[in-house]
Amino acid sequence: MGMIGGGKDAFIGAIHRLAFNMDGLVEMVCGALSINPQVAKESGESLFLASDRIYMNYEEMIEKESLMPEDKRIDFVTIVTPNFAHFAPAKLALQKGFNVVIEKPITFTLEEAKELKQIVEETGLMLCLTHTYAGYPMVKQAKAMVKDGALGKIRKVWVEYPQGWLSKLSEREGNQQAAWRTDPKRSGKSGCMGDIGTHAAHLAEYISGLKITHLCADLNIFVEGRALDDDGNVLLKFDNGAAGVLMASQVAAGEENALKIRIYGEKGGIEWAQMEPNTLLVKWLEAPAQVLRAGGNYSDRLSSFATSNCRTPGGHPEGYLEAFANIYRNFATTLMAKMDATEPSKEALDFPSVDEGVRGMAFIDNVVLSSQSDQKWTEYKV
Amino acid sequence: MGMIGGGKDAFIGAIHRLAFNMDGLVEMVCGALSINPQVAKESGESLFLASDRIYMNYEEMIEKESLMPEDKRIDFVTIVTPNFAHFAPAKLALQKGFNVVIEKPITFTLEEAKELKQIVEETGLMLCLTHTYAGYPMVKQAKAMVKDGALGKIRKVWVEYPQGWLSKLSEREGNQQAAWRTDPKRSGKSGCMGDIGTHAAHLAEYISGLKITHLCADLNIFVEGRALDDDGNVLLKFDNGAAGVLMASQVAAGEENALKIRIYGEKGGIEWAQMEPNTLLVKWLEAPAQVLRAGGNYSDRLSSFATSNCRTPGGHPEGYLEAFANIYRNFATTLMAKMDATEPSKEALDFPSVDEGVRGMAFIDNVVLSSQSDQKWTEYKV
Amino acid sequence: MGMIGGGKDAFIGAIHRLAFNMDGLVEMVCGALSINPQVAKESGESLFLASDRIYMNYEEMIEKESLMPEDKRIDFVTIVTPNFAHFAPAKLALQKGFNVVIEKPITFTLEEAKELKQIVEETGLMLCLTHTYAGYPMVKQAKAMVKDGALGKIRKVWVEYPQGWLSKLSEREGNQQAAWRTDPKRSGKSGCMGDIGTHAAHLAEYISGLKITHLCADLNIFVEGRALDDDGNVLLKFDNGAAGVLMASQVAAGEENALKIRIYGEKGGIEWAQMEPNTLLVKWLEAPAQVLRAGGNYSDRLSSFATSNCRTPGGHPEGYLEAFANIYRNFATTLMAKMDATEPSKEALDFPSVDEGVRGMAFIDNVVLSSQSDQKWTEYKV
Amino acid sequence: MGMIGGGKDAFIGAIHRLAFNMDGLVEMVCGALSINPQVAKESGESLFLASDRIYMNYEEMIEKESLMPEDKRIDFVTIVTPNFAHFAPAKLALQKGFNVVIEKPITFTLEEAKELKQIVEETGLMLCLTHTYAGYPMVKQAKAMVKDGALGKIRKVWVEYPQGWLSKLSEREGNQQAAWRTDPKRSGKSGCMGDIGTHAAHLAEYISGLKITHLCADLNIFVEGRALDDDGNVLLKFDNGAAGVLMASQVAAGEENALKIRIYGEKGGIEWAQMEPNTLLVKWLEAPAQVLRAGGNYSDRLSSFATSNCRTPGGHPEGYLEAFANIYRNFATTLMAKMDATEPSKEALDFPSVDEGVRGMAFIDNVVLSSQSDQKWTEYKV
Repeated sequence: MGMIGGGKDAFIGAIHRLAFNMDGLVEMVCGALSINPQVAKESGESLFLASDRIYMNYEEMIEKESLMPEDKRIDFVTIVTPNFAHFAPAKLALQKGFNVVIEKPITFTLEEAKELKQIVEETGLMLCLTHTYAGYPMVKQAKAMVKDGALGKIRKVWVEYPQGWLSKLSEREGNQQAAWRTDPKRSGKSGCMGDIGTHAAHLAEYISGLKITHLCADLNIFVEGRALDDDGNVLLKFDNGAAGVLMASQVAAGEENALKIRIYGEKGGIEWAQMEPNTLLVKWLEAPAQVLRAGGNYSDRLSSFATSNCRTPGGHPEGYLEAFANIYRNFATTLMAKMDATEPSKEALDFPSVDEGVRGMAFIDNVVLSSQSDQKWTEYKV
Repeated sequence: MGMIGGGKDAFIGAIHRLAFNMDGLVEMVCGALSINPQVAKESGESLFLASDRIYMNYEEMIEKESLMPEDKRIDFVTIVTPNFAHFAPAKLALQKGFNVVIEKPITFTLEEAKELKQIVEETGLMLCLTHTYAGYPMVKQAKAMVKDGALGKIRKVWVEYPQGWLSKLSEREGNQQAAWRTDPKRSGKSGCMGDIGTHAAHLAEYISGLKITHLCADLNIFVEGRALDDDGNVLLKFDNGAAGVLMASQVAAGEENALKIRIYGEKGGIEWAQMEPNTLLVKWLEAPAQVLRAGGNYSDRLSSFATSNCRTPGGHPEGYLEAFANIYRNFATTLMAKMDATEPSKEALDFPSVDEGVRGMAFIDNVVLSSQSDQKWTEYKV
Repeated sequence: MGMIGGGKDAFIGAIHRLAFNMDGLVEMVCGALSINPQVAKESGESLFLASDRIYMNYEEMIEKESLMPEDKRIDFVTIVTPNFAHFAPAKLALQKGFNVVIEKPITFTLEEAKELKQIVEETGLMLCLTHTYAGYPMVKQAKAMVKDGALGKIRKVWVEYPQGWLSKLSEREGNQQAAWRTDPKRSGKSGCMGDIGTHAAHLAEYISGLKITHLCADLNIFVEGRALDDDGNVLLKFDNGAAGVLMASQVAAGEENALKIRIYGEKGGIEWAQMEPNTLLVKWLEAPAQVLRAGGNYSDRLSSFATSNCRTPGGHPEGYLEAFANIYRNFATTLMAKMDATEPSKEALDFPSVDEGVRGMAFIDNVVLSSQSDQKWTEYKV
Repeated sequence: MGMIGGGKDAFIGAIHRLAFNMDGLVEMVCGALSINPQVAKESGESLFLASDRIYMNYEEMIEKESLMPEDKRIDFVTIVTPNFAHFAPAKLALQKGFNVVIEKPITFTLEEAKELKQIVEETGLMLCLTHTYAGYPMVKQAKAMVKDGALGKIRKVWVEYPQGWLSKLSEREGNQQAAWRTDPKRSGKSGCMGDIGTHAAHLAEYISGLKITHLCADLNIFVEGRALDDDGNVLLKFDNGAAGVLMASQVAAGEENALKIRIYGEKGGIEWAQMEPNTLLVKWLEAPAQVLRAGGNYSDRLSSFATSNCRTPGGHPEGYLEAFANIYRNFATTLMAKMDATEPSKEALDFPSVDEGVRGMAFIDNVVLSSQSDQKWTEYKV
């Protein structure tokens, strides 16, 4: 595998490396780690890359790797650049025959996302979008329970994602993460909604199995001088008639990364919070609530969809990196099966793909459109 | 004191009695406890009322009590009838010189509420609205902290009130509580929003010290055959520019009475949940979160506004009945001070009054109006 | 009812009044509220007692009340003096025909407790010991589940009771509560173990239905200059072979009143914490843990033994005062039934009595004896 | 690195691989993975080991690796065999010049542990003992706070480690983990105390900085037919006069892996629970409790000793595998520094070593001795 972006001091690139290292299925052998040649070189060396596979830019990397013998060259690239620089390397990689792992949001614009989808379909290659939170075992358990009808028909979806780290104008105080994420030229149409609202929207659709059809958005910029929304509350309608609320904020002072979802059906509800990810609280209309735990000693109640994404026995907490690693593991297992022309297991197949990427970009478009509209409901168009 | 409504099997009447008994400041000496004479009589007897002060209707009670000598007759009435039967007895009691304690929502319509406000102002009598949740010490602590600027300028208010008890069509299955609360003729324009949404709206304004200026409501009826909303999500705008969300539901299957509020300012946020009411979580932008506890051993951090509403030392949990009792205690203390022409303490003055009642009725009107509108924002009119 | 002790500024007397007021079953009509005549008088007046029933000492009160006509005089006395002053008024009251409610520990010495037991048996009168924590509904639920065998044979009992309020030498700094509780002449042989260890021991035996047969105690004085233990850890053996640990401390700095118990059997375990008393966590060996809640909407799972001790529906938290009120309510209901010669309900019968009082005093004796012994196990003698 | 033990289906071997893979500092290049040649071979192949470095036993591995050129051969071995098979390979590896990572308990007997300590000292090589729980950042934060005197003099240490997985006679039902851990010939003198009691004892001494000087143990076998203790409660005395309790059980039905520690000093206390490892609750005698979080946005309050063991920002939970990885990372970093003759950072130096191994074996000896004694206190001898 080769990485595009993710030089030293980059946050998400380091996270990707921790995640794909864990299971020993993926080896990083090359990289175009920075547009700054010095950084690219130093970063590559510190990661023990062979010096001839430390590339100065992604074009060079994709070109040279594509010329290597099949058993030597990389199988896929991972793209961890800022949003505006996702599309071009992804497109080139696919065109040159490489599979792609890409950070969310998939592209800078919805149009680019649709174009990628077309290329993926034409090439038959795989694209994996790292919606990390979908990698948690108890998220998968929740999805399985909804799908199996345990909660009855779904009526309500509440998803919230408060963070506090942009409570000040940090983008002007030397915070590089803040700088690009609040910059329309690098981040896109939306700040908070693009960065974390998309995670919340994906999680809501992923677990519920429903699709948002209409939304009503109130996006806000609370920190004076900021160029993009740092907060937003959105009413939702789903395709089965369920109602929802999506709340995301980066100015919820004192909050860390408190993604949480609650879904209620006719018979009960589920509650899952990312900061205590190994617990799924299941509430029942007419019975005591149950505390389902990753690795719990009741295999009849835990879906294999969940347990196949656990590494440790109950009570040995797995966290964000393991969830991230699950995305990679499921992608890599599927890729290896495909390369071996064998049938990957159903569970292994589960990772977010280009369709989720398109849908995420549509979410951003729709939520921004709605926020600018006087009408209550905006149809969710893709 | 005399009670109107609240015969045996009535839920909220029994709660009022538990609440005002607790501190030994209020004695119930008469009642018009039911429109059913048999129930009225039996209820009065079981409460040890003198037989000549067990009245068959409120008109009789108010009339006869008003003719008694001043040192014998009651000082105030408590009205715990269903919503549609609040206004008439309240009006008559005030006109005959009695102070009034009344369940929320204050009346059946906004117009009635405004008329009560006028009578209160004309008579100079006191009206206390039992918005119970405002009686919790840590709610008062939160209010004090916001007022003192501890959180900086308020940006966000999230208030949620999920219940699950109306997840089925219980009003057709002999549940009397469900029957009147879902009946437009007895409950009013709104079901869920009138019953619990008003509590949430009051709490949001009470703690934040802000006023809602605009709202955007999505009200739902999820249980087929029901006549009033059993669920709703509302976007809010406040008079200082803060944004908010109010979520209330009676079909959140598996939830009990999970009122919870979070308020974020520039410097930090507070979180309070009614089901663990003795804890106030205070989150700071740049310091560890603090767990403030009712009765905590740090009197310099706890406002006297909070501590004067505690009865027990830290770690001896007080609950819903004590919060309710605080409303009564503060009302009764103020009333006694007024009757003695002394100055009640600042803390004792704090209980919801007719203004909050008018505002609650306006909330119901506005939220229903907004739910019927295609426009995103509806101005909050009183 | 008449109260002995509990003048103004006394902690536990005020708590008793809040507790017995709540349900409207008990009326306080007289008192010998302080050995200081001025305090006795002022306290009685502030509680609206008739001036001729404000007594200057308990002997006077018991004497004069016993001479009143039966329908005027009190039915029982409540004794809330410091430990050393429990026995004499209790004995006299019983001898003069009054039932007794008494704070724990029941007496100053085990011998006194045994003598009281004999008098109770001889007179046929009732004695109620206010082990408050046994009044919580979810404690009763736990007891019911153990009794019904839901957990299988009990193997382990862990009970802990950390407080931090004696972390300094407060008895020398004007803290009256600290002063008498750490004074061997007023408190007895033990400080921490007598004050709160007895609660923990009672709770362990109450829920488990087992009896302690042996113990191994390590009592400590951590605050220099203190005269009685302020901390202790005790190994326990129960009569069915179960093993246990009892930990109590008043120097666990930062803790409030964190009584907590865990009991494990062959099939599962229960966990209950006094500071969140409406929840009973039930853990199962081979199924997800369940969260049982006071007032939960699953009456088939909640014992009537628990639900008959609830006042409010699920999600309306009841606390320490309601638990205390349950002791009084159950005692008063039983007393009234006895006076009416009717059969009180099985649930109503449940309140701690003189047997628990004797056992509590024996616990103090045994734990102090063990702490002074070099032998590992000390037999628990009564 | 080469692994001894840990073939497919072995629990802890797989955990080690996940842990050392994560940071990309350690590469496994050889192994003697099973005493069963077929399993050894298959396991090695599935881990992509070169076929000539899949060894059939540890003697062969150590011998052959020691003959390889320095830049090819391994730097250290990891020993993950059952307890009885720790000593011999560790001794041989050290004698042949290899550093050693070893699972706890370090050996089968205290004598072996002491012999290893001597060899380590003679050879100057490094030995790392994987007491995983010492790898959690918030454990290190707690240690730093105690060391800095934030809590004042330590008075109390409560450590508990309940598990429920041995609640039945699983060793007779084909559970391989249960089989060797309950077998005196493979596990040692103690079951529960050796397996998890040692973790608890280590954690208590690690965070408190104190040493146990005396103990009083009650060990139990609750499951009929079992050969070793499956439960135990131990009173502790520490070298500064602090008192403690250590509770460990493998028959606490329904518990997963609930290691938890509370330490109280004169000024406050800390509480840490392994199943929610990113939170450290700090309770203060005279101020509100604080919730310290791994990755929290208050670097002045978090020790660099803690933060240098975090990988992700606040709110992205790290878990058991990351704690494990910290042990490896700190060991590997120190080893690399030593090989480069540079000075490793103070933080990197922190990992459990042979001294902790000796102390752990002494704990087992002492706790078993005490459990067989009639005397209350047994001196803790090493």
